[in-house]
Amino acid sequence: MSERERAVAELQRLIDGIPVAMVTTIAADRSLRCRPMLLTRLEPEATLVFLTHLSSQKTDEVRRDARVNVAFQSDKGDRYVSVSGTATIEHDVTRMRELWNPTYRAWFPGGVEDPDSGILTVRIEYIEYWDVPSSRLLRLWGAAKALATGEVAESGDYNRLETD
Amino acid sequence: MSERERAVAELQRLIDGIPVAMVTTIAADRSLRCRPMLLTRLEPEATLVFLTHLSSQKTDEVRRDARVNVAFQSDKGDRYVSVSGTATIEHDVTRMRELWNPTYRAWFPGGVEDPDSGILTVRIEYIEYWDVPSSRLLRLWGAAKALATGEVAESGDYNRLETD
Repeated sequence: MSERERAVAELQRLIDGIPVAMVTTIAADRSLRCRPMLLTRLEPEATLVFLTHLSSQKTDEVRRDARVNVAFQSDKGDRYVSVSGTATIEHDVTRMRELWNPTYRAWFPGGVEDPDSGILTVRIEYIEYWDVPSSRLLRLWGAAKALATGEVAESGDYNRLETD
Repeated sequence: MSERERAVAELQRLIDGIPVAMVTTIAADRSLRCRPMLLTRLEPEATLVFLTHLSSQKTDEVRRDARVNVAFQSDKGDRYVSVSGTATIEHDVTRMRELWNPTYRAWFPGGVEDPDSGILTVRIEYIEYWDVPSSRLLRLWGAAKALATGEVAESGDYNRLETD
């Protein structure tokens, strides 16, 4: 198993049960903007795939500056994952057909060939995560300690995965 | 009530019950990095306050490039808040004394005067949020529709607050 495959498998495990990510981009005014997005797919080549509209503001942002962060937070607050990468947005009917689900028609009225559909693909460059022990008592304390200080994150006593 | 006061009161309501934020900064390699941090305080002058260590990686990052995003996500997945701003980090014993709580000694062994303590202050410039209806059924559908498309976020059919 390559380093990349190992990282993707581990990321899959980490984000299991977290359907929505917070995706941060750099706006035209250079500020960092973030919005929730449903993850469509994590692909074996270490890319995260989302659907969007070509007419959306984030499409403009990503085309101006490709740097993004994709953050996942479990609903129990016991896991936080930060993925750094670069994004591209394409209109690709062939790929859209592969990703298509009939419920998507609600937001892409033109179906697979909707001219405004965009596939946002993030090439993963860096993954960091904070995994808090599962015991509730330990978790709360562990979280408070690690989170306030960044100690877990920055002392080396944590897991860092880099894809090749 | 000024525009700023109104925005701060609204932000306070939005992040009520969300103790941990995901804070995104720009790293030395220009990638966007994110980590969970416990919010210490939202101040009336539209600043968010966190505690950190001067020796931490994020201190270097913020001093190199002050732009940050602070994202809040409710544990029920029914609310997402994005705060854009600029951050400063200072060692300030007087201010630390005001913020101090005895439990902080676990990560600042030197107490109020710990030489490595840092106060990270984010001046809020922009707030966006996604508030999903409280009915669970509506919420899930509403969330899926809004989140996958950015439609709620980018059609103007949402709430945008700007501080002055």
